[in-house]
Amino acid sequence: MTSDEEAIRALVATWMAASKAGDLETLSWLMADDVLFMVPGQAPFDKEAFLKATRNMRDLRIEGASEIEELKILGDWAYMRNRLTVTVLTEDGEPTLRRSGYTLSILRKEPDGRWVLARDANLLGKQS
Amino acid sequence: MTSDEEAIRALVATWMAASKAGDLETLSWLMADDVLFMVPGQAPFDKEAFLKATRNMRDLRIEGASEIEELKILGDWAYMRNRLTVTVLTEDGEPTLRRSGYTLSILRKEPDGRWVLARDANLLGKQS
Repeated sequence: MTSDEEAIRALVATWMAASKAGDLETLSWLMADDVLFMVPGQAPFDKEAFLKATRNMRDLRIEGASEIEELKILGDWAYMRNRLTVTVLTEDGEPTLRRSGYTLSILRKEPDGRWVLARDANLLGKQS
Repeated sequence: MTSDEEAIRALVATWMAASKAGDLETLSWLMADDVLFMVPGQAPFDKEAFLKATRNMRDLRIEGASEIEELKILGDWAYMRNRLTVTVLTEDGEPTLRRSGYTLSILRKEPDGRWVLARDANLLGKQS
């Protein structure tokens, strides 16, 4: 595994942990300033909108698992396919909603050598 | 505009025309043999599954329009964001269903210089 692959796998692990913790500062650091998020049935939205939506979900306990199915380095860019499972828990820790699905992401290596998320298409649905 | 950008824009135009015509041979030629298609709520599917699904829709009249919102060349690879509008027509040409949405695609330049679709995340929904 190359150091770029290792860096991107670390990014995904850090992302999942920061999501679970509601750690907006870390999430913000892991994405490009011009990042765009794409989900079904909506226009693409930007970093500010993503952070606002995540902030609004802070009261929920959300656990996610991510499995990288494909990671291809293209110089200072990369694309990645993930299989994602997200579980929403009650205050008592009981799972109330479970969704899984796939993502297609574009990552970019910044001039300082840090990889960040640049484009993210999230196809998460009730099935699969 | 570079010749790579021109080639990819021509690919999109040819794809839309071939989709409308139900021209499976041309569609097949425009995608990599290892292409993967991603849609909400399903596992990614391959070239054979895509062509079979398209063959099954041959009796429908489908018209689509595609607007390229972003196209970034990364050497022999590229990523592209499109806004897509698809209309299903009756035999009399009356529109019965209209859907719009966004796609995130990865394209690859083959050794013979031809660009093909390699990964495609289609987030088309009822809304826009």
